[in-house]
Amino acid sequence: MLKEVAKMIRGLSADAVEEANSGHPGLPLGCAEVGALLYGEVLKHDPGQPDWPNRDRFVLSAGHGSMLLYSLLHLAGYELSREDLRNFRQLHSSTPGHPEYGYTPGVETTTGPLGQGFANAVGMAIAEKMLAARFNTAAHNIVNHYTYTLLGDGGMMEGVVAEAASWAGHLGLGKLIAIYDDNDISIGGSTDLTFTESVADRFKAYHWHVIDAVDGHDFSALRQALAEAKAVKEQPSLIIARTRIACGAPRMEGQAEAHGAPLGEEEIRGMKEQLALPVDQKFYVSEDVKQYFLARKQDLQQLRKKWTEEFNCWAQANPALKDEWDQAHQLGLPIDFREQLMGIEVKTPAASRQISGKLLQQLAAQVKYLVGGSADLAPSTKTYLEQYGEVQSDDFSGRNFRFGVREHAMGAIVNGISLHRGLRPFCSTFLVFSDYMKPAIRLAALMKQPVIYVFTHDSFYVGEDGPTHQPVEHVETLRLIPGLKVLRPADDEECKLAWIQAMERTDGPTALILTRQGLPRLNKVEGWAGAYRGGYIIEKEKSNKPDLVLMASGSEVSLAVEVARLLRENGQDPRVVSVPDRELMVKQGQQYLSETLGENNFRVVLEAGVGAGWYRLLGAKYHLVTIETFGESGPGQELAAEFGFTAPKITEDILKKI
Amino acid sequence: MLKEVAKMIRGLSADAVEEANSGHPGLPLGCAEVGALLYGEVLKHDPGQPDWPNRDRFVLSAGHGSMLLYSLLHLAGYELSREDLRNFRQLHSSTPGHPEYGYTPGVETTTGPLGQGFANAVGMAIAEKMLAARFNTAAHNIVNHYTYTLLGDGGMMEGVVAEAASWAGHLGLGKLIAIYDDNDISIGGSTDLTFTESVADRFKAYHWHVIDAVDGHDFSALRQALAEAKAVKEQPSLIIARTRIACGAPRMEGQAEAHGAPLGEEEIRGMKEQLALPVDQKFYVSEDVKQYFLARKQDLQQLRKKWTEEFNCWAQANPALKDEWDQAHQLGLPIDFREQLMGIEVKTPAASRQISGKLLQQLAAQVKYLVGGSADLAPSTKTYLEQYGEVQSDDFSGRNFRFGVREHAMGAIVNGISLHRGLRPFCSTFLVFSDYMKPAIRLAALMKQPVIYVFTHDSFYVGEDGPTHQPVEHVETLRLIPGLKVLRPADDEECKLAWIQAMERTDGPTALILTRQGLPRLNKVEGWAGAYRGGYIIEKEKSNKPDLVLMASGSEVSLAVEVARLLRENGQDPRVVSVPDRELMVKQGQQYLSETLGENNFRVVLEAGVGAGWYRLLGAKYHLVTIETFGESGPGQELAAEFGFTAPKITEDILKKI
Repeated sequence: MLKEVAKMIRGLSADAVEEANSGHPGLPLGCAEVGALLYGEVLKHDPGQPDWPNRDRFVLSAGHGSMLLYSLLHLAGYELSREDLRNFRQLHSSTPGHPEYGYTPGVETTTGPLGQGFANAVGMAIAEKMLAARFNTAAHNIVNHYTYTLLGDGGMMEGVVAEAASWAGHLGLGKLIAIYDDNDISIGGSTDLTFTESVADRFKAYHWHVIDAVDGHDFSALRQALAEAKAVKEQPSLIIARTRIACGAPRMEGQAEAHGAPLGEEEIRGMKEQLALPVDQKFYVSEDVKQYFLARKQDLQQLRKKWTEEFNCWAQANPALKDEWDQAHQLGLPIDFREQLMGIEVKTPAASRQISGKLLQQLAAQVKYLVGGSADLAPSTKTYLEQYGEVQSDDFSGRNFRFGVREHAMGAIVNGISLHRGLRPFCSTFLVFSDYMKPAIRLAALMKQPVIYVFTHDSFYVGEDGPTHQPVEHVETLRLIPGLKVLRPADDEECKLAWIQAMERTDGPTALILTRQGLPRLNKVEGWAGAYRGGYIIEKEKSNKPDLVLMASGSEVSLAVEVARLLRENGQDPRVVSVPDRELMVKQGQQYLSETLGENNFRVVLEAGVGAGWYRLLGAKYHLVTIETFGESGPGQELAAEFGFTAPKITEDILKKI
Repeated sequence: MLKEVAKMIRGLSADAVEEANSGHPGLPLGCAEVGALLYGEVLKHDPGQPDWPNRDRFVLSAGHGSMLLYSLLHLAGYELSREDLRNFRQLHSSTPGHPEYGYTPGVETTTGPLGQGFANAVGMAIAEKMLAARFNTAAHNIVNHYTYTLLGDGGMMEGVVAEAASWAGHLGLGKLIAIYDDNDISIGGSTDLTFTESVADRFKAYHWHVIDAVDGHDFSALRQALAEAKAVKEQPSLIIARTRIACGAPRMEGQAEAHGAPLGEEEIRGMKEQLALPVDQKFYVSEDVKQYFLARKQDLQQLRKKWTEEFNCWAQANPALKDEWDQAHQLGLPIDFREQLMGIEVKTPAASRQISGKLLQQLAAQVKYLVGGSADLAPSTKTYLEQYGEVQSDDFSGRNFRFGVREHAMGAIVNGISLHRGLRPFCSTFLVFSDYMKPAIRLAALMKQPVIYVFTHDSFYVGEDGPTHQPVEHVETLRLIPGLKVLRPADDEECKLAWIQAMERTDGPTALILTRQGLPRLNKVEGWAGAYRGGYIIEKEKSNKPDLVLMASGSEVSLAVEVARLLRENGQDPRVVSVPDRELMVKQGQQYLSETLGENNFRVVLEAGVGAGWYRLLGAKYHLVTIETFGESGPGQELAAEFGFTAPKITEDILKKI
């Protein structure tokens, strides 16, 4: 029967790419047997309930092969119709060009940018282990699933896969099974032109269990390999499936051209003839295959129902755990969450990374499902949860991750943890190294995952480490990512509000931008609550006529206050506005902006980063105190003078211009 | 004597970090023997002439250990005084916190962001092989040097190292020798907490020659390893040097705390006592060591002079090659370069990636030192130089690179090629994947390297591949990087000018932003030359009163022209300004901006990306046609309608607002 299933996959995939007149037939045809076996026999899931928490996860890391996944979801009985397949790659369809999380039932993550899916899968496998350690009891095994991922030659070359694989091996993720679609072809031609390493040996070096040279078109060989992989409990497994790209296509099989372009009608006809598929029917699925999957769907439903019964027993026996489970899956917060956090005493002046570190300890006590770690910088980013252990191969009950110097994998792995559900991950590094993980941050935003980034050392005030470690363009770069909330708090109170907003936000990621250097507590004329609107007045002019308004974020707010003082000494009457979240402030609308910033006045912006994004809040008369070049190595305060971030200099410039 | 040298390194490094009260003593102390051997015995270089083309390259990939390098450069006789060491990490010193290219004689590249230096070194080793293939003759071997790099545990975890190492192994770079400072310590503590893979086996899998478990404090073991590495001609070598971090410090040796903080006076005193260094002298160098390096400097100078003689003989015997050498090292262009390029006939409409591809073929014929490649997307980005071969392990005379799906390494490797000098590299991928190589792009800008990026598929017009493949924030993100020139040409003429500007720019990198979809040739009222100013009028209003000005870049310029036509039909009198290089246009100053954009008028911006950066060119009355969300999967033209990029819709909106 699986042979028959593989035929259907080939027919459906070729037809859909042809109908769309764009897409990637190579992988779906080449991996038809792998896919047929997984969805026809191996995967534990329930097509009628795609969010069953204990389902096996399957991640198509090679996202361009989306028609493989869509064919399988369709056949398996997910809510994905023949019509949906027909609409492959069409606007507002549930079958977009690459798998998009949230668009299609059964799609576990958004893939396409190579390597991300593999690292997501590592994150899911970690989450499984962690939830198992938290929730399983001697009597009930409610968390117990595998995570499968399929990647191709392209993904295998990506650094993010190397990083994630190294860490997965370190953690001994026995229930992670990666299948490598080893077909010797990438877009440019034979992989021999650029990729001649031994993948098997490399993964062995990472301490993976490697099952090499499996015939990817032979069901019994694949079945045996998967059984072997599942039996290995202490190591993740890599199955190297030797396949032929576009297998089944009479002339395109084995050709690079089959990777990313429709096969053409003639070629499809040839393939269908060869496979004994009805040549004149598109999107054909045989009655046998339909019946087979119908029966399987019922079996799987039974499986899921049995699990639900067990889950209910477990819940009754362990009400406290059940509460914890619900909280974690709903990202619930204690009722007094805000009060508790606001009530924490913090001595100032203090660096916002220090403040954040202190808050995080308290947060961890309040929110049990909060887990996180850093890319080998925990002592600097202050993100180690002191009261809780760390995740290591022999114990997944801890809450700290040691990601190693693997920023990119870190970003993609926390996406996987978040997508799995049941935990809320944060991760951390120096702001300047957000560059290393940008592709993963973008995907968190695209998938609306509530990941929290703790980015410290947020400007040239980093000092002696010099321009490679001094962010200049990074805050603005992050602000440009649609759906990423960027918060740059100015003192301990704003820092608390930032963490509150980050934790309360469940429909997207948040980046906290924190200092290395100390910050004083600010006096706020109307209190701190205005920070919830992104920007708010902290010092008011006496005249009630805001002719001169200083705006700043983060560490520059206290500088703005100092400038305001000097301006007052010089007969001016300035207002100071703190802007921890510029994009949110803009969203408040024109009336709020007018109230807060005044109108037709002189505006000053202070931010130790590029100024490009601030013009939106400026009018005809303004002065920018930003940095438009790279930094320099030297003590922070000397750099401040060098780059014009001193109150007397700024005051003088404003007085000249005003 | 080398033992003595190692002592000096320890003393100098500890003193400098102490004096700066910040820095990283762990590596310099741990690698003192490695450094002493390299600069005391192995490296072929001339401290009196740091830019000797045939010098061996040494790249300290673990840039935080900068005091190792500064100590060595000081001892070896580079222009780096005791006073300079005293000024370690001070503003405007030649000893910044991390090695910065251009600040210090003998520093080959800027390092600090982990892994970049290693990949730079791969690029340098490739450049050496390529120049050797081009310039060496049977009689004269004028290009013949090794490239050494030193990296630590942190770098070893980075994906960019994995990518670069895989490709270096593929290319069989026999004269690349990497030394791995294997000390089991990273910032977070023991590397065992996160990094337990077998690095030796991994590099063997990449086809490297691995010399494992070398005692990094034993000169004869290190000497033997280096000799072995040099003898292996067909593979790069990895020497795994087992070291103790902060070796020599009585209590800090072997401790994570020694990585990045001063040792403290007491510890330094203890170390000096232990090493029999004068305890009360700072920055001490013994007379013996001074004499040793003086003599060595003379020997090396002789070596360099001998090479110069040979080079002169070669030049006389091969005047054409000598010309080529000079052109390549000066990045010279033919006198008729502009004319030739402008004269190329291109059929329009054509996608700018297609146009660029055609130009590139011609460019390659004109500029022999231009080399490049793509991250497995050459058929899509149109960057393969058809008339020239490709770089492979058995032949380095070609000009095309097959980087594989390794964007990050690609970016860092072209930096290394550029830094080596003698070649001018470009590289290419889809614009959206510039994210994968951002850290390397930033370093190119910081180091002012004339790398060219060919980024195609530049907006949602990519279409069916969906949001993961549709850049939204990327053009703006690149514009934020100080020193990176970003050009988004609108048609074939602007495309030619873009390539001209990119090629003529020798003091920094340039990103060409190109379309997947076709673009018509634009009629330009005053010709194309205005493009050299970043933005210029292409359609003028009849009234000579620019009350309504449309600005656009790239593919949206033709849309702006269409909108202008409709506006005219509706009684308006618009001006159209094409802005291929917004930052350059801003730099022209207020007068040019007023002339080009008018004053106090209604301005419209059309760009298929985020609008955040355009407000600088807007006044009180404006309309933005941008995209502030992620894209969607669907045919490009349908997406245009979905996102409001159609002339009738835009015209209607403008008419309403005006």
